[in-house]
Formats: sequence, C-alpha cells, structure tokens
Amino acid sequence: MTVHTDRLTATTPTGATTANPTGPIPVPPAGSARLDVEAVSGALMGAWAETRHAARERAARPELHRPLDVTVAEHRERTSEQMVLLAQENVSWPMLPEHLGGPNDNGGNVAGFEELVVADPSLQIKAGVQWGLFTSAIVQLGNEEQQKAWVPDAMSLTIPGAFAMTEIGHGSDVQSLATTATYDPTAEEWVIHTPFRAAWKEFLGNAALDAKAATVFARLITKGVDHGVHCFYVPVRDGDGTLLPGVRSEDDGPKGGLNGIDNGRLAFQQVRVPRTNLLNRYGDVTADGSYSSPIDSPGRRFFTMLGTLVQGRVSLDGSAVRASQLALHIAITYATQRRQFTAADPTRETVLMDYQSHLHRLLPKLASTYAGAFSHEQLLQAFDDVFSGRTDDPEAREDLETLAAALKPTSTRLALDTVQECREACGGAGFIAENQLVGLHQDLDVYATFEGDNTVLMQLVAKRLLSDYTSELKSVDRAGIGRFIAQRAEVLAKRHTPWARLAQDLSDRGNPRRAFDSMRQSDFQEEMLTSRARVKVEEVALSLRPAAKMSPAEAASEVNKHQVEMLEAAQAHADLVRWRAFTTAIEQFEDEATRSVLTDVRDLFGLTTIEDDLAWFLLSGMISAQRGRQINSDLRRLLWRLRPHVLDLVAAFDVRPGHVRAPIALGGEQERQDEAAAYFRAQRASHDAPVSEKSLRDKEKTAKREAGRRSGTKP
Amino acid sequence: MTVHTDRLTATTPTGATTANPTGPIPVPPAGSARLDVEAVSGALMGAWAETRHAARERAARPELHRPLDVTVAEHRERTSEQMVLLAQENVSWPMLPEHLGGPNDNGGNVAGFEELVVADPSLQIKAGVQWGLFTSAIVQLGNEEQQKAWVPDAMSLTIPGAFAMTEIGHGSDVQSLATTATYDPTAEEWVIHTPFRAAWKEFLGNAALDAKAATVFARLITKGVDHGVHCFYVPVRDGDGTLLPGVRSEDDGPKGGLNGIDNGRLAFQQVRVPRTNLLNRYGDVTADGSYSSPIDSPGRRFFTMLGTLVQGRVSLDGSAVRASQLALHIAITYATQRRQFTAADPTRETVLMDYQSHLHRLLPKLASTYAGAFSHEQLLQAFDDVFSGRTDDPEAREDLETLAAALKPTSTRLALDTVQECREACGGAGFIAENQLVGLHQDLDVYATFEGDNTVLMQLVAKRLLSDYTSELKSVDRAGIGRFIAQRAEVLAKRHTPWARLAQDLSDRGNPRRAFDSMRQSDFQEEMLTSRARVKVEEVALSLRPAAKMSPAEAASEVNKHQVEMLEAAQAHADLVRWRAFTTAIEQFEDEATRSVLTDVRDLFGLTTIEDDLAWFLLSGMISAQRGRQINSDLRRLLWRLRPHVLDLVAAFDVRPGHVRAPIALGGEQERQDEAAAYFRAQRASHDAPVSEKSLRDKEKTAKREAGRRSGTKP
Repeated sequence: MTVHTDRLTATTPTGATTANPTGPIPVPPAGSARLDVEAVSGALMGAWAETRHAARERAARPELHRPLDVTVAEHRERTSEQMVLLAQENVSWPMLPEHLGGPNDNGGNVAGFEELVVADPSLQIKAGVQWGLFTSAIVQLGNEEQQKAWVPDAMSLTIPGAFAMTEIGHGSDVQSLATTATYDPTAEEWVIHTPFRAAWKEFLGNAALDAKAATVFARLITKGVDHGVHCFYVPVRDGDGTLLPGVRSEDDGPKGGLNGIDNGRLAFQQVRVPRTNLLNRYGDVTADGSYSSPIDSPGRRFFTMLGTLVQGRVSLDGSAVRASQLALHIAITYATQRRQFTAADPTRETVLMDYQSHLHRLLPKLASTYAGAFSHEQLLQAFDDVFSGRTDDPEAREDLETLAAALKPTSTRLALDTVQECREACGGAGFIAENQLVGLHQDLDVYATFEGDNTVLMQLVAKRLLSDYTSELKSVDRAGIGRFIAQRAEVLAKRHTPWARLAQDLSDRGNPRRAFDSMRQSDFQEEMLTSRARVKVEEVALSLRPAAKMSPAEAASEVNKHQVEMLEAAQAHADLVRWRAFTTAIEQFEDEATRSVLTDVRDLFGLTTIEDDLAWFLLSGMISAQRGRQINSDLRRLLWRLRPHVLDLVAAFDVRPGHVRAPIALGGEQERQDEAAAYFRAQRASHDAPVSEKSLRDKEKTAKREAGRRSGTKP
Repeated sequence: MTVHTDRLTATTPTGATTANPTGPIPVPPAGSARLDVEAVSGALMGAWAETRHAARERAARPELHRPLDVTVAEHRERTSEQMVLLAQENVSWPMLPEHLGGPNDNGGNVAGFEELVVADPSLQIKAGVQWGLFTSAIVQLGNEEQQKAWVPDAMSLTIPGAFAMTEIGHGSDVQSLATTATYDPTAEEWVIHTPFRAAWKEFLGNAALDAKAATVFARLITKGVDHGVHCFYVPVRDGDGTLLPGVRSEDDGPKGGLNGIDNGRLAFQQVRVPRTNLLNRYGDVTADGSYSSPIDSPGRRFFTMLGTLVQGRVSLDGSAVRASQLALHIAITYATQRRQFTAADPTRETVLMDYQSHLHRLLPKLASTYAGAFSHEQLLQAFDDVFSGRTDDPEAREDLETLAAALKPTSTRLALDTVQECREACGGAGFIAENQLVGLHQDLDVYATFEGDNTVLMQLVAKRLLSDYTSELKSVDRAGIGRFIAQRAEVLAKRHTPWARLAQDLSDRGNPRRAFDSMRQSDFQEEMLTSRARVKVEEVALSLRPAAKMSPAEAASEVNKHQVEMLEAAQAHADLVRWRAFTTAIEQFEDEATRSVLTDVRDLFGLTTIEDDLAWFLLSGMISAQRGRQINSDLRRLLWRLRPHVLDLVAAFDVRPGHVRAPIALGGEQERQDEAAAYFRAQRASHDAPVSEKSLRDKEKTAKREAGRRSGTKP
C-alpha cells in the first residue's frame, strides 16, 4: 500500500483546517505521545489506498459538489451532467470482470465509490444505481452474451438504467414481489406484467426520467409454475426518452434528500421481451418453456441471486463511515476554535472543545467512527475475497452477507446520529446549509432504510446467529452438551450469586486506579463484549425453544414476543465485530505513541459500548457494582486524556479541502475570534474603554466597606 | 372549556385517517376499557381549547401549507404572502395588553401560535419573529409612548422587524454581546455600532430582506460607563426596502430547514437613533446622559430584561409537542395499515404495528409525547399567570424561567427523535417529501439550538437546582441539618448495602406479577423519579463543595469536570416534572376506562424513563436486581396492552385532514393492500393461479417418502 505524504500535507494548506489554530488549544506537549497521523491515515485508507487517493482527489473537484439551493429539477439535471463526467472518466471500470476487459477489482471499485459521498451523495447514489445495481445485475446474473450485449452501453451511460426490484407493496421483502414474467412459448417471449397498484416498482433511481432500460425482478412463470423471483432486462424508453408501449412511469417527486436522483415508479402492462432477456445465470427456460436451474432449492436459489447484490450494503457501510468522518472533521475543527462563555480565564472565553459536555457528545462518536472504519475495511476485504473468486464458497458468501447485514445498519445509524450531534454541536452555524451538516443528514437519512431496511437486516443477523447457535448445539457430542450445560449453569449462577462481582471487587481491592487499569485491559473488554454477544443469543434461543413444538402461527407469535431481544443480540454481535476489528487494527502499528493513543480511543469505544448496556451487565452479574460505578468516571478520564489528540485523530481521516466546504471549519471562526481579541486588547491598551457599571458598583461597595470599617460601623 | 364534538368527527371524514381500517387490526373488544377520545382530546387542548380549535382550523388551510419543492427565494416569497394573511386576520392580537386595545391573553396567544407548526414551521417562526420577538420586545421593554408609536405598524406588518440579539461571536451568551450603543448628549442620540465582524447580528429572521426596523440589543454606554445590554428600536430599511445609511445586511442563504424565512445578518456603522429609541422600561438616560434604572443590580436587571422574552421558549415547547403528535399520527396510522412479511397467518402479511419492534420504537415516543403535552399545559398556565400579572413576582418568574428552560430542551429533543423514528418506521415512504416527516425534521432541527441552545438551557436548570439545594441547606436549622445528614446517610447506605434491594425482593417474594403490579404503582415510580432527581443534584453539590474554597479559575475547572452530571441532574428534574404533570392530568378524568388506559401510557413513560437510567438505579441501590430484571419484561407487556388503543391514543391528538397531508396516512396504503388482497382472492377462486415451484417440490418429496415407505426402503 502506497502512502503519499503530499496527501497529508494537502489537508492543511493554510494551516487553518486541521493544524492547531492560534491560542492555547491543547496539543500534545513536545516529546509526549503523539499520533503518527500519516500512519493512521494510511491504515484507514486500507488495502485500496491508491484508489481512495484518486477518488478523494476527484471528490474534491467543485464541479462534482452538492448544490445548496436548487429545485429538484435543477439538482437532477446537475447530477445527470456529473454522471457524464464520471462515465467519461470510466470510474466504474474496476468492477468489470476480465472477460469484459476489466480487472475484476471489486474491492477497489467499492472503495472508490464510497469516497464520492463527500462530493454529493446524490451523485454517489445515482452512480450506484447505474453501475452498482443496474449494470451489476447484468454482470452478476447474466450470461456472457448478455453481458457483452448490454454492459458496454450501461457503462458508457448510453443506456441509463433502473434497478426495478422494490415494489410499493413490498419494501425489504423481495421474496413477496408480485410483478410477473410469464413465458409465452408461441412467441418465445416473456410477458412482464404489474397485476395491481401495490406491485408497481417503487423508489427506483433513474425511473422518473433517465432510465432507458431496467433490470426488472419478477416472478418467473412458465408452464403454470411460479419459479420465484428472477431478473429480466427490459427496455423502458426509446432513444428520445419516450416510454415504450405498456410501460408506465411516475415521479416520486421531492424527497428528504438525494434530490439529484430522479426516483420514480415503473409499471408494466403486458410488456413483451425476448426469451433471452431473462438474466439466466441461476435459472433459464428453453424455447418450449421448460425451466432449469443450477440450484435445486427455490429458496437457496433466491438467496444466492440476491447475495450477488451484497455490494450495495458493503458500499453503504463505507460511505456512512466516510460521512461520519466529514461531520466530525467539521464539528471538531469548529469546536477547537469557537469560544463561548468565560470560565477558567476571565479575559478569554473557553473553547467549546474544552467543555466536558462537548467532549462527551463528540468523542464517543469519534471512537465509534474509528471502529466503523476498521471493521468496514474487514468487510471490504471479505467482499473482495468472495467476488474475486479467491474464497468463493457458500459459507464465505453467507459470512459476508451476515457481516454486511450487521455493519450496514450499525454504520448508517452511527452516521445519522453523528451528523446530527455534530450539527447541534455547531449551534446555529450548524443549521446553515453551507456548513454541510444539514445536507449530509438529509442525504444520509435514507441510507438507514434502503438496500435493506436496518431493522430487517438486523433481524437477518439475529436469525443467522440463532441458527449457528442451534447447529452448534446439534453438532456437539455428549461431552459437548455437558460442557454447554455447565457453561450455561455458570452464566445463570453468575446472575444469581455475587461470585463474579466479588472476584472483581477483590481483584480491584477498592482501588479505583486498579479498576481503571483493569477495565482498560483489552481482555476485560473482550470478555465482556464476547460474553454479552453469546449470552444474548443463548437467552433468545432458550426462550424460543418451546416454539419448536408449536404450530407455525403460534411459533411466529412466540418469535415476535422476542423480536426486540433478537435485535439486541444482533447489535451485541455487531459491537463485538467492531471492537475486534479496532483491536486488530491497532496491532499493525509499530509506533508506541500511536498504539497508545489509538488504544485510548478503542477503550473509549469499548467502555462506552459497555456503559450503554451497563444495566444488562450488572444484572447478568458480569460486572460488579464497584466496577459499574467506576466505569463512568473512567470514561470521563479518557475524554480528557484524548482531548489533546482530537485534531490529530481527525486529521488522520484525511478529509481534504474541497471535501470540507463549511466556512466554520475553514478558519472563518478563528479569524473572527482573533479580530475581536485584538480589538479588546487595543481598547485596554488605549485606556479609553468604557468602565462597566458592575465594576464601578463593586468598587463603591468595597469603598463603603472600607469607610465603614474605618468609622467602626458595620457595613 | 368548550369541547366541540364536531371537531373530533372532523378527523375521520372518510374513516381513513384515524378510524380502524378494514382487516383484523386489534381494537378494544366491545364493552372493554376504551379511551374516551373526546375527553382526552379536550384535556390535551387544555385551558385555551377554543383558541386552539380556531388555530387548528386555520392550520388546515392549504394556502398556509409548506411547499415541497421550491427554491429558497420562492419559499420566502410564499411565506411573506402568508404573513400578510395572518396579519389581516390579526392572529397575534391576543398578545396586546389592554392599553393597546388587546385582551392581554398571553396564554391564548401562545396556544394559537403553537398550532401553526403543522401548517408550515417557516410561517410559524416568521410570525414568531415578527410578533413574538420584535413586537413583543417593544411591548415588554418599551414605555407606553413607544408602544403606541411602533406596535400598531408592527402588528399590521407595515413595519416588518428583526429581533437583533444574537451575534456571530455569541450565540446563547447574550451577556457578552459586543454591539455598542453610545450616548451622544450633544445630539441627544444613540450611536449604534458594530465594532468587529464577530459582533455582527446573526441568524436574524427578516434581516436578509424584509425587516424595516430592528430591536437591537447593544451595550448601553453613557458617560464612559458600560451599563450592559439594553434594547433599542432601530430603523434599518426605508419604505422601498433600501438599507439606511450605515446599516449593512447579509443573507444567511439556504438553511437545513425553515427556508421560508429570510434569515440574515445586520451590522451598524455608527448608526444614529434618537435618545427615545431606547426601550426604557428597565433603564433610561436623561437628555444629558445620566443613567437610571428601577433595578439596581446590573446582573439582575439583565436577567429581568431577558426574562420578559421567555415566551419564545414556552411556545417552542408546545410547538415541539404538536410536531411529535403529527409525526406519530402519520407513522402509527401507516403502521396499522402497512403489511410486511407473513408470520402468524400465511395468507396475510402482518401489519407493522403488530411487530414487537415496531411497538417498541413508537409507543415510548407516544407516551413521552403525552407527558410532554401535559407538562406543556402546566408551563403555559404558569406563563399566563405571570404575564397576566396574576402571580407576577420575582420567584414566580424565576420558576417559570426554570420550567421553560427544562421543558423546551426536553420536548425539542423528543420531537426530533420522534420525527426521525417515525420517518424510519415508514421505510422508503417516510423519505418521500409529500409524506411530511422529512420536512418536519428539517424544520424542527433548529428548535434544539435556537431560543437558547438546549445544552445551555439545561445548564441553567442545573445551576438553579444547585442554588436551591444550597439555600435549602443554608436555611435549615440544626434539626434540619441533622435530618439532612440522616437522609444523606441513608442514600449512601442504600448504595453500599443491599437493604433496599432486599426489602424489594422480600415484598415481591419472587412473584413477577407482584413486582409488575408494584412497579406500576404510582408511588413506586414517583419515589424513584423523585429520589433520582434529588440525589443527582445532591451528588453534584457534594462534588462541588471543594470548589467553594478555590480560586475562580480553579472552581470553574472543577465545575467543568462535573458538567455532564449537572446536565443529567437537570434532565432527571425535567423527567420528574413531566411524570408529575402526566399523573396530575389523569386525575381529571372521571371515566374509569380512560384513566386505566392513560395510566398504562403513564406507566410506559415512567418505566421507560427508569429503564433508560436503570444502571444508575441499580448502582444507587434504589432498585433491586430482581425488579431490574423484571422491568424489561413489564415494559414489553405494557406495549401489548396498549396495542389495541394506539389509534384511539393518536386520535386524541386531533390532528386533522389538512394537517396530515401525507398520502401514506390518508388511506393510500390501505387501498393498495385491499386491491392486492382482492386480486389474490380472485386468483385463488378462479383456480388458474400458477403453482409455486416450492409447493410442487414439497409434494414430490412427500410422494417419494410415501412411495419409499410403501416399498419398505428408507427415504
């Protein structure tokens, strides 16, 4: 991995954005432990550093930036123009497999895509629709002939396309789609049809205006048998942009964000396409309509087909992390320059970042964003391993899908919460559009519900964890079951007796310092997070055991009574994954100081995660009351320890000028503060400053008191 | 209080918005406890029901509604036109005191204002700037002559005005404003001056375009003495809208929301106004420049002046509650119609509201919104008591300000979180602008940081609680101190010995049902919330005792080390206030069923509040482990108990057609579901539905197994 040093200096051309501003902003004292910003930045760049570097240069170009005040129509037009630039620069070329003339560099392709979010999320997602979904469906689900027929035009934007999966009636429940593709053997054609309003394809990027074709997901019906959802290549508009016969389209109109994309609806009235327009990798019909598939089970076939589209979730995970980085860069830069209220020093107001509440609201988000970045890198590598074919087996695919399903909801939630916290932390200035935070929230908002609704995805994770747990139980021999029962007994014992707590108390021996040190030990955090992830799954599994003997309806109702616990188990799993990824990432640094600072950040992440669920840890007996009380003050201590490093930690994100367009993070605030300070200095020096009434009154009082004392009377 | 029954039926003209849709949506079985919607609606309307009724009618009018897709310039123009309508209808007339021809109905004025939020928050806040701030400053801070000179034109919009308090350099820290108003006795004029860039007036509604005058807050300087911040009436534009000499203005440009308002900046270059343009209720100068004030202490004078402006915070509290109600109406209506995934019934998908996770994400917000509505009513009455003069003494004013400072951050936070949760709970449809939720979030966003940043306000509350606590300690006699020490000892004892927990365990005797009943007892919740509010203040007070002996700088630094705890103490106070208001409100209902359902909602609020801070309760020894474990399942049980009442609970909000413009909450979803269900019914009846591959395979397998069994071989 090449790390360009000029990349890092590029972030501080004027010294204003990430360098320490004038004034007594705490920086690590010379010679003390300080982050190696360049090394950390390199690690955050990950395996596809050069691709990211180029993509960051691109994302800094003004012609690709989000407009601030345009109508939906104007924003769409701008985004469409920007798409032409991206197509000309062939940005999605890395996704192409070798036989289509590409490098099959799936990781690099996604890495580059993720960086676009700081230019304009509309542009990012429009590019995602065109290449990541529409083109990708042809590449992943089509045969070589189909790929050669349609991919070049899709890549060049000659054929803008829609990815017509979601229907109004069924969001994340793709298996229940109602659009039909019925085979007509006499004409050797598919008849694509929308049977009712709820089956209209909905929320499709490109559908309202630009799309000339669509990859349409529909139930394949031939010889009276419904073979489930398959994907078809369906032209929808002619060269002039007129809808083809039988195709209907509606515009979704303005949205909460991403208004550069022409989302819309599509419906099909007995629309005919040739037999060969079925993307037939996982299912095909002969001319006479006989169906065949390389995958026997209809269920597995469906999930295999959908699994090829995991890229969307992977790339949203990385994009959400990048958006959090941008928001934190803006809010933390501002917080180190903005001053409000005098506290310690009466002649100088306190910098926001020096308030405990400000550290408390921003630093845990910073720590989670680091955890998110390192775990995303693992996800991206797993994705590339599978899609390069290096480790492409069903288990690896399933692991990849579970990891993506766990991380995408976690990071998109984090991004929304971080952006909102940053916006509020910047006060009124955070609400002004040019300071970027509000636009970022508006655009990122939908990341939480598209490409798989976050709740639905977390439920997938929970189901996977439960089935793993069950098959683990099934596969163990007698001895193993004995071991399991013993373990389980231990957990229950912990809950009802104070052994573990006593042991912790004893080892801490009432010494807060020792408790602090031991809680900051990697082992402690790992044990806590691992046990929690395991016990939460166990608890759900045990609760659900009676369901095995129930009717499907009763079982479903029983599962529904534990849905929230299932989601919490999935979240505990995602937290553990992030904590481990963070911990593993720290090991790669040789520099002691860097390891030390990053370990503090990791501890902040780990202990915050534990504190957020502290009641559970206390009730499960895993954390003693003494440690429980300690954890809070330890967290506060960590905040102050990290205070001198905040600008370094943010600098390592390598958010560049051009990505940051917010005046409040480009030195404007500092200039104003400096000017005001100079004014007051000059006024004091000139001795013609007005005297404050209060100080006069104070003097009067003192004088009276003096006089009173001299005359012997009480004041 | 008059309750119009037609008001309630108006919400369900087609049966689509709040009535039970077709299908097996649980409704309370006939004859069982059911909410008296009309009575609850009346109680939520509160003391100014008729005003609210009229204001709701107004807010339903299309010409006052938020546009969905316009540029900033177009939205501003639309809002300005809407303002003319409001002025013509004299909506703010109730605010005028008797000597200006009004009824001095401050409560009614604010109640009416709050309802505007569901029309267009831009219109609401623009009206707030004109009448609630600019005009109100003249009314509250000016003498009768000044009022008669300027108020009529302000009321009629002849003079649109800006409220020029905030400066770029100082947001919520008004005491540090730097704009100066220096008295020139020779000309008998004030010289208004902006000494540097950070002193520009910033984020002012009306400043960019419309304002012809401004109430400018500036440091009053006369005879070389700075008497602190006072308010001046300063013309800024002539009749044609041209800036007057020395006045500069800049446009804040697009914002995250509220784009119907022309926020901007103002600066003054030695701008002269007559001596009589000082709004002189709390401070005046004679022609020769001698200063006098009815309030001696400059500090108290300043806070008294600012206190007259508490109305802004009061009205934002009510508006935030109303916005939450609208969001919940939309999301809950949709959730009772939208179906996704089959679970219990294989032929029919499950309604979203029947998922545990959906109840879990929406119902606690519904409960908090009820708590917010009832506590707002108390705040509004306290406000009206003070401003009507009925109970206008310094203590009542201080109590009012503390209450407003506690509730405004709590409800604006709740509104943002509720709107966001509702938007996500509606999936992709929640992101479409016409469904209102995204626009509501965009507009409400700034409610968290304007009219006093939420963090700053909560800190005010904490300071007040601490000073009350300290003076309570000071005022008690010896016996009192003994009592206090005993109490304190008891708290410490609870923490370190398991007495309280044992007592709880004993009284529950391992009976979850009994624990459930006792936790749902009002006494239990009240004791928990009261003790928490008190202990949290005590803890901070004890931690800060050493600060009393420190230098100011050291003391400030010590306070800063406990800032987060202070904010948590303030929040605990706000929670207690809301819980008590809710509990008091329930007492007014005679109908047993209504009391019962509302008590469930109150319990959900109380227990959720306790659960959110459960680790603290466990560590403080106030809640036993057994109850701690119980609370979670009790909460789940409450969710299901409330499930049949959700539509009634939302109907009581009286959110009307016209307020709800979201197609997803106006029956569109239900129609689609019904059409799809009819289609499948017809298909099943006609027997020409395609057979699913899966069912064929299942049949094949069964047949093989049968055949195997018959031939005696294993399958």
